[in-house]
Amino acid sequence: MPDTLAPRAFWLRDNCPCAECRDPRSGQKLFQITDLPEDLTIAASTEADGALELLWSDGHRSRYPADFLPSPAGPADSAAGPTDDRRTEHGKRLWQAADFAAGIPEADWSAYQADPAERAAVLRAVQRFGFAVLRGVPAEPGRVLAVAETFGFVRRTNYGELFDVRVEPNPNNLAFTSAAIAPHTDNPYRDPVPTLQLLHCLENAAEGGDSALVDGFRAAALLRAEAPADFALLTRTPVPFVFRDRDTELRADRPLIDTDPRGRIREVRFNNRSIERIELPEAELAPFYAAYRRFAEITLRPELQLAFRLGPGDCVVFDNTRLLHARTAFAQQGARHLQGCYADLDGLNSTLAVLDRRAAALDLLQELFEGEGAAEYLGERVTQAEHMLQAAALAQRAGAADELVAAALLHDVGHFTGVVTGRQLMQGQDNRHSDTGADWLAQWFGPAVTEPIRLHVAAKRYLCTVEPAYRAALSEASEYTLQVQGGPFTAAQAADFAALPGAADAVAVRRWDDAAKDPELDVPGFAAYRPLLAALMAR
Amino acid sequence: MPDTLAPRAFWLRDNCPCAECRDPRSGQKLFQITDLPEDLTIAASTEADGALELLWSDGHRSRYPADFLPSPAGPADSAAGPTDDRRTEHGKRLWQAADFAAGIPEADWSAYQADPAERAAVLRAVQRFGFAVLRGVPAEPGRVLAVAETFGFVRRTNYGELFDVRVEPNPNNLAFTSAAIAPHTDNPYRDPVPTLQLLHCLENAAEGGDSALVDGFRAAALLRAEAPADFALLTRTPVPFVFRDRDTELRADRPLIDTDPRGRIREVRFNNRSIERIELPEAELAPFYAAYRRFAEITLRPELQLAFRLGPGDCVVFDNTRLLHARTAFAQQGARHLQGCYADLDGLNSTLAVLDRRAAALDLLQELFEGEGAAEYLGERVTQAEHMLQAAALAQRAGAADELVAAALLHDVGHFTGVVTGRQLMQGQDNRHSDTGADWLAQWFGPAVTEPIRLHVAAKRYLCTVEPAYRAALSEASEYTLQVQGGPFTAAQAADFAALPGAADAVAVRRWDDAAKDPELDVPGFAAYRPLLAALMAR
Repeated sequence: MPDTLAPRAFWLRDNCPCAECRDPRSGQKLFQITDLPEDLTIAASTEADGALELLWSDGHRSRYPADFLPSPAGPADSAAGPTDDRRTEHGKRLWQAADFAAGIPEADWSAYQADPAERAAVLRAVQRFGFAVLRGVPAEPGRVLAVAETFGFVRRTNYGELFDVRVEPNPNNLAFTSAAIAPHTDNPYRDPVPTLQLLHCLENAAEGGDSALVDGFRAAALLRAEAPADFALLTRTPVPFVFRDRDTELRADRPLIDTDPRGRIREVRFNNRSIERIELPEAELAPFYAAYRRFAEITLRPELQLAFRLGPGDCVVFDNTRLLHARTAFAQQGARHLQGCYADLDGLNSTLAVLDRRAAALDLLQELFEGEGAAEYLGERVTQAEHMLQAAALAQRAGAADELVAAALLHDVGHFTGVVTGRQLMQGQDNRHSDTGADWLAQWFGPAVTEPIRLHVAAKRYLCTVEPAYRAALSEASEYTLQVQGGPFTAAQAADFAALPGAADAVAVRRWDDAAKDPELDVPGFAAYRPLLAALMAR
Repeated sequence: MPDTLAPRAFWLRDNCPCAECRDPRSGQKLFQITDLPEDLTIAASTEADGALELLWSDGHRSRYPADFLPSPAGPADSAAGPTDDRRTEHGKRLWQAADFAAGIPEADWSAYQADPAERAAVLRAVQRFGFAVLRGVPAEPGRVLAVAETFGFVRRTNYGELFDVRVEPNPNNLAFTSAAIAPHTDNPYRDPVPTLQLLHCLENAAEGGDSALVDGFRAAALLRAEAPADFALLTRTPVPFVFRDRDTELRADRPLIDTDPRGRIREVRFNNRSIERIELPEAELAPFYAAYRRFAEITLRPELQLAFRLGPGDCVVFDNTRLLHARTAFAQQGARHLQGCYADLDGLNSTLAVLDRRAAALDLLQELFEGEGAAEYLGERVTQAEHMLQAAALAQRAGAADELVAAALLHDVGHFTGVVTGRQLMQGQDNRHSDTGADWLAQWFGPAVTEPIRLHVAAKRYLCTVEPAYRAALSEASEYTLQVQGGPFTAAQAADFAALPGAADAVAVRRWDDAAKDPELDVPGFAAYRPLLAALMAR
């Protein structure tokens, strides 16, 4: 076994999941690669329950859960491997206008706000197609910033936190006139360029002023297919993008098409307005201009132009490293007013990943309720799932805050074996169900949900001490577990408990817990609580 | 001539400076490359006064000022040409610790705020060496944001607009513990990564907690020199950088060393803590780990570590795409508190370019005062420069606002021929000295300075109408120019003038103008006004 693992030795050690190697709180690595002996080898390996245990030549021991190693051959195609730059064309769906004949990616603003699934769909469209349109965003000044804040951070530029796209008396940019603007990306003179743009329409009563989007990755891919030498030239020729006004002097010398080390399209900068005099050896000028012109011609092909009209309340969000945007000229006297701002893709991708992670967590909880949870519950006359659903229903009937309803619903989640991750087991974490459940839930929920769960066993020990009648009413099973849990508190322990900030909430959860063992009670299923749980996760 | 220009034909036309091709207000290009005929040629060329005039095959005419064409051979070495990505190693001064034996780039916060030259020096150090330290920044919470705002925009991240680096009870990052942190760059899991970081020390009474910086470009260049294959491997292998907490799931798959299309080092990402499991074909794992380790070892070489200690009030500003920063462990009970924020290089570079442009403008004005301005002034008994310096001195004696002192000082700047640029001449702009001067000065000064200058001739025509005694007292030369300027206003013109918002200021400048012709008066020279002018430029 050590022999077959040898090529992976440093990889395995670098990824040792033990608490000495990785900080259990932050998940961050606690050692440097240079801290490892250069001649490190695997001294011995064993397998148990699918987990791999290694003894290292320096005496360290590592234990890896069953699913830790990739399939023995490694990713079949390294270009498609999981370690891959998702900002390149590889992670995108390239398109032309006809691909949206049935409609463009869009959502209603109120649905986007209310429903995490709708929000995830919009963000995924921006990630995959480079854009999405929100409809019904109130046509009020400044609202575009609120849209950006739903998925990331506004990137301020020389145009301000927010900019108005309308006819200005002394424009420092042609955007602020009524002129037609050919397909372009914004701010190519910034470095790093703002990776996302939002444009929110407040008013569009002008004749003309229609919008268009072009998939710049698609245009670049067409150039590569039709004229590989031109494509290569544009990826390696820095172009001077410049913006200048009284307070600003921005300049970035970057290629029109940026590729990753594997040659895949990663970023497009295209803005004829702001290209300054390029200085190249004279012999290189004509080939550059021929390639630049060919690329520009491709971006103007009708089949690539996705034309639409922004109406009041529409807000388009698009990837400014990929999509080119354009507008037709409009009658100067017609009222057309957009507000825009910039943001960044990393924030959007993070928000989407967190939404996906939360949806997966809700799916997992639902599975646990419907699978393991449907099994017998330590001799009670209800299943574990019925018990928890009843506790939640009692909390809701009592008018409890959403956090306490969730705590009641999830208070025994630590009983489910799926909850205890390999890493927690490896770290020898105590499997007392209140702590395990609270720790596991803390990945998604704040302390107002997790702490009553953490304390709900302590609350029982507390109540047994301060309310003799409470103890007398315990079920046989519950009296048995009381002993396992350490028995009633001493007077001093009870006083300490009562002084904890979450004690009252924990006692409330405990009382619903105790009452939730009625085989006749008919209560809503897990699905009824998903919106409440999703909202708490986002709080 | 057309023959020798032929290879440059599209370049010349693309850069035609006429008002049809470039918007005179914004300087932006008004046509697309695709608007030009594909078979465009130069039909005829002439030279006059060094300017080049071209007639194009499509009938367009272009006129280029004398200095427009680069030297015939083009830039001698295209790698060093003016179109060059200044973020690569090419635009930097790589260093090791001994290079700063005589001291690190630093400045006093109050000098930095007061003196544009000091500010430019600090920003240039960040651009060139990757860092600078400001001393004496008040050790008050939040001040680091004010430092960032002096040169750019704060980039908000998941850590907030501002983050506290001190021991936290539940850290989501090892930075917020007392642990030693090896040299690293921040936020490699963001894309785009924040390109600048600021760390402001509020308190550092702990034992330990010293700081170090390493030039990551230098480390990468050493790797390239010592192990070219390892360097190449690191530039083309994406590494998964990950950060995860309850609300965040950031991931960027980027190489440790990023190069531009010419292979020059452009960005370094190095943060052992946040590297997740890299998935590579098994055969590539050992070579990757060997290269990664070798690079890590180089970053730890003592001669590369620039060690220093941040004391209260010190604020270090550094390029987070180039410099690695580190700290030694410190005693947990000792008080150590830094506040940090992120910003971006493009804003810093723009601020520096504007400072340089303003300094150059002041130099040019000084040259004009001392050169051309020292010549005779239309038969008056003072030179033009003496006249303007006297006007400024009179304004200052009258307690005028700084803007009016500047207007008085610069009111006749439109007389200087150096002020009329080639572009303005080509655009056929009217050379009346008040407008020319005001337009030219508007590159650096706001309307409170330029509008009284624009109106100072009109003010004379106004005063001649409403104050007969004023006209009677005009010098002979001034009476002559009055006729050239259009004579006294009609009553209606005078009323229109008086209603202009800047009329009173223009009249005030006019009276100082008229009084500033005393051959005996001894007044301060141009240099005395530089701080006032610099402050007005920055307003």
